[in-house]
Amino acid sequence: MKLATFRHGGTTSWGVVEGDTILDTGAALRDRFPDLKSVIAAGALDAARDAAGAARIALSEITWLPVIPNPDKILCVGLNYETHRKETGRSEVENPTIFARYANSQTGHLAPILRPRVSQDLDFEGELAVIIGRPGRYVSKADALAHVAGYACYNDGSVRDWQRHTHQFTPGKNFPETGAFGPWMVTPDEVGDLARLRLQTRVNGQVVQDALIEQMIFDVPRQIEYCSAFTRLEPGDVIATGTPGGVGAKRQPPLWLKPGDTVEVEIDRVGLLRNSVADETAG
Amino acid sequence: MKLATFRHGGTTSWGVVEGDTILDTGAALRDRFPDLKSVIAAGALDAARDAAGAARIALSEITWLPVIPNPDKILCVGLNYETHRKETGRSEVENPTIFARYANSQTGHLAPILRPRVSQDLDFEGELAVIIGRPGRYVSKADALAHVAGYACYNDGSVRDWQRHTHQFTPGKNFPETGAFGPWMVTPDEVGDLARLRLQTRVNGQVVQDALIEQMIFDVPRQIEYCSAFTRLEPGDVIATGTPGGVGAKRQPPLWLKPGDTVEVEIDRVGLLRNSVADETAG
Repeated sequence: MKLATFRHGGTTSWGVVEGDTILDTGAALRDRFPDLKSVIAAGALDAARDAAGAARIALSEITWLPVIPNPDKILCVGLNYETHRKETGRSEVENPTIFARYANSQTGHLAPILRPRVSQDLDFEGELAVIIGRPGRYVSKADALAHVAGYACYNDGSVRDWQRHTHQFTPGKNFPETGAFGPWMVTPDEVGDLARLRLQTRVNGQVVQDALIEQMIFDVPRQIEYCSAFTRLEPGDVIATGTPGGVGAKRQPPLWLKPGDTVEVEIDRVGLLRNSVADETAG
Repeated sequence: MKLATFRHGGTTSWGVVEGDTILDTGAALRDRFPDLKSVIAAGALDAARDAAGAARIALSEITWLPVIPNPDKILCVGLNYETHRKETGRSEVENPTIFARYANSQTGHLAPILRPRVSQDLDFEGELAVIIGRPGRYVSKADALAHVAGYACYNDGSVRDWQRHTHQFTPGKNFPETGAFGPWMVTPDEVGDLARLRLQTRVNGQVVQDALIEQMIFDVPRQIEYCSAFTRLEPGDVIATGTPGGVGAKRQPPLWLKPGDTVEVEIDRVGLLRNSVADETAG
C-alpha cells in the first residue's frame, strides 16, 4: 500500500495511492485519524485500505506534501555509505553519525527545493527514509524491522557552507523547504528485502548518485537499534538513512543546485521523488 | 508574569504562578488555548493574566512539567562561554554551534534526571533558555528581543560518551528525561537586562558553574539572528543558550551525576530549577 499526504481544494488530507489516483481516506476517517501520523500510531493502516466512501482524486489534481509533515523526530544518519565517507575524508566509526532535521524544513514531491538567499551552496543527498510505526526503546536489531511502517524517498537537501560553519551540521540541514520527502510511503510488504534495491539521484537527468541499499555501512536494523537506545522512537518518526557518494560539494568543480534544475531521487519499489529548484523569494 | 505547565489531579494544564500557588488558567481557557505554546502563539499572555475563575492550587500539590513540553524545535547552542570553549579545547568560530534536542528528551522541575542504563557518563549543563513568542525568519539583532516570550532555566543534561561516539552531538543530548526545563518561564518585563544576571549550577549544594549572562560569546540577539536565518522560528520554540565552564566531564577526576544527587540551575530573576538524579528503570 502507498500512502501520501496532500492538499486538494484547500484542504490537507492523506490517503491511499492507487494507480494515477489517490483515495481521500483522510476525509472519510478524519474524526478518528486527522493525519497519516495518527493512523500509523493507531496501527490502523488496514482501516485506510478498507475505508468506504473515500473520494477518488486524480494525482494530477493534488499538491503533494511531505509524507509525514509533522514527525516528532527526523533522525538523519550521516556518512553511511563508504563512497560518501571517503569523499568527505571522515574516519571510520563504530556507531552511526546522527543529526537532526526539524519538521519545518521539509517539502513535498514536485514542490521546489529552495535555495536560500544567504547561500549558493545548495546540494542534494538522495536517501531512503524509514517511517517508524510501532514505538520503541532499546529495540534489538532482530526486532527492528517490526517497528517500520514504511519506506520513502528523501532528498536531504544541504546548504554546505552553513553545514560547515562549525562541527555541528544542524544549520545547513534545516533551511526551509530543503528536505524533500515523497511522493508516498510504501508499506514493507510491497518493498520486500532492502538489500538489492538501487538508489539513484539524478540532476537534470544525469545520474549523480547510484548505490545499492546493501552498501550502507550501518543497515536499517542497526540504525533503529542505535537510535532507540538514546531516544524513544514514536510512530511517524523518520530516519533518513544516509546518502551515497557523489554529492555536489565533493565534485570538481562542485555541482551546486541552481534555480531551474530538476533533481530526482529514485529507489526501486519505493518511488521516484522529483523536485525543481527555485530561489527563495519571501523573507 | 511566571507561567508554567503542570499536572494536577490527573490532568495536564498550564497557568500563572503567584507566590506559592498557581492559577489553573489552562482549565479556564482550555477551549481557546489547550497548552502554553498555543497561548504564546496567539500573543495572548495578557488573557492568561486576566483569566477569571481560574482555580488556585498550591505549588506543593502539582507535578511540574517542562515549561513547553511540546516545542516544535529545541535549538541548543554549544560552546557559548569562553570558559567552556577553552575547557573542551575547541577553536574559536565566527558563528554559534547549533545542535538539536527532541521534545521527548525533556523533564520538569523536581522530577529526576535519568541516568540511562547504557552509560555512567551523565553530566550537567546549566543554561538560560529563551522561549520564542513571535515567529520570524531573518530576524535582525536589533529586532530579536521582540521575538522573546520569556526566559527559563534549563539543564542540558548530557551523556558524554554517547555525545562523542561521532562528531555530531545528537545521541548524547537526547536521552529521555535528561533535559530539565523549569520551573517556569518569566516574561521579559520581569527579567529586564540579561547582562548582569548570574547563572549558577550546583551539585549537592556545591557550586560547579558560575557565570554572568554577559559572558556569552554569542549573545541572545545574535543567536536569534543566526538561528532565524536557517529556520523559521515559531512560537514556543526553545533556544538553550549554552553552558559556562565547569562541566563534570572536564574535571579531574570527572564529576558524573549519580543516583541520589541533587542538581540545581539558578539564574537571577529567572528561577531555580532543581532535579534529583535517578537510574532509569523501565526499558
